[in-house]
Amino acid sequence: MKQGIFITFEGPDGSGKTTHAKLLAQWLEKQGFSVVLTREPGGTPFAESIRKLLLKPGENVFPATELLLYAASRAQHTQELIKPALAKGKFVLSDRYSDSTVAYQHFGRSLDINIINELNKIATGGLKPDLTVVIDIKTNRGMDRVSRNRAKDRLENENSLFHGRIRKGFLALSRKEPGRIKVITSGGSIQGTQEKILKITREFLKRKKLS
Amino acid sequence: MKQGIFITFEGPDGSGKTTHAKLLAQWLEKQGFSVVLTREPGGTPFAESIRKLLLKPGENVFPATELLLYAASRAQHTQELIKPALAKGKFVLSDRYSDSTVAYQHFGRSLDINIINELNKIATGGLKPDLTVVIDIKTNRGMDRVSRNRAKDRLENENSLFHGRIRKGFLALSRKEPGRIKVITSGGSIQGTQEKILKITREFLKRKKLS
Repeated sequence: MKQGIFITFEGPDGSGKTTHAKLLAQWLEKQGFSVVLTREPGGTPFAESIRKLLLKPGENVFPATELLLYAASRAQHTQELIKPALAKGKFVLSDRYSDSTVAYQHFGRSLDINIINELNKIATGGLKPDLTVVIDIKTNRGMDRVSRNRAKDRLENENSLFHGRIRKGFLALSRKEPGRIKVITSGGSIQGTQEKILKITREFLKRKKLS
Repeated sequence: MKQGIFITFEGPDGSGKTTHAKLLAQWLEKQGFSVVLTREPGGTPFAESIRKLLLKPGENVFPATELLLYAASRAQHTQELIKPALAKGKFVLSDRYSDSTVAYQHFGRSLDINIINELNKIATGGLKPDLTVVIDIKTNRGMDRVSRNRAKDRLENENSLFHGRIRKGFLALSRKEPGRIKVITSGGSIQGTQEKILKITREFLKRKKLS
């Protein structure tokens, strides 16, 4: 059987990743593909237990602890869910993956990029997404959406300077790997953003000779 | 203020580390030292939450996940508890620390030693124990004691070949760092073992000009 396709959604909080990952999963299923929709941190029961620890508000968690917990959650998620699904030829869509660690922990918290790359390698076992959609949103707009829509977790409570650095981090990553990472500017309607994502996906499927 | 002293207890399961760490803590306090007794995985409330995840029986935890969770717990423990206590000039006694990861994950589970050393460096921030007491016990004897005394956690359920490799791992570590790592053979009475540990500790204190 053919190896599946791994697509990740990245971007600052409040950019609409979760919504658009769902919409793309539905569209791909309509095209006849078998799709697994998942998220990070979490994605499997044990990885979700790690997610709960990570996002608990009010905990005094050191940056190195946080980084290692994200890596642990990713190791479990990758080996228990993503790799087996890809081996069965499925599309795996993940709401966040390793680029988030570079954006949040390196650009956001200034942790050493070599340590982060090393940990991502241990956690992913070398697996890289085939396509990454970064949904870009102006920092204040993203934060406004988060405050309107749901209770904030520990990371979302950080200040807007931190979130500005993260946004720049995602854009820097996309300049480094333009073939894999495509940036969409959010701002209009959900439908308008979705159409941009579908355009990128159609081009990707054509390149892969899957449509 | 003078930097404190960091002593770790290592060895296979059932070797009596917890008992002897407590006894040495009491003895050091009688000598007038201020002592913090702690353990790994765990040692602080957040690190103990990670410990709970790690030791849950029946979970399908991948080796890389386990390794990263131990490192996360150690990062939190080191920065929240051990380093601040040492900075105040205290003795810190820990029931397990970084040598356990080398013994269990490298010698026990055959994970790459370079990855483990790299993770230990990230987790400890370079902190090394001043003195490490390895309590050695024949594999079957250690396992018997564990079965008699308490419900087994996930790691203790592994088979005796695994535990034999771990025991050899601790002995190999002690040959590599004979100045820091001292091996005690357990087997006689608790008091007999304790006297061996006190002898090593007295020599150590003399070398450090603390007695």
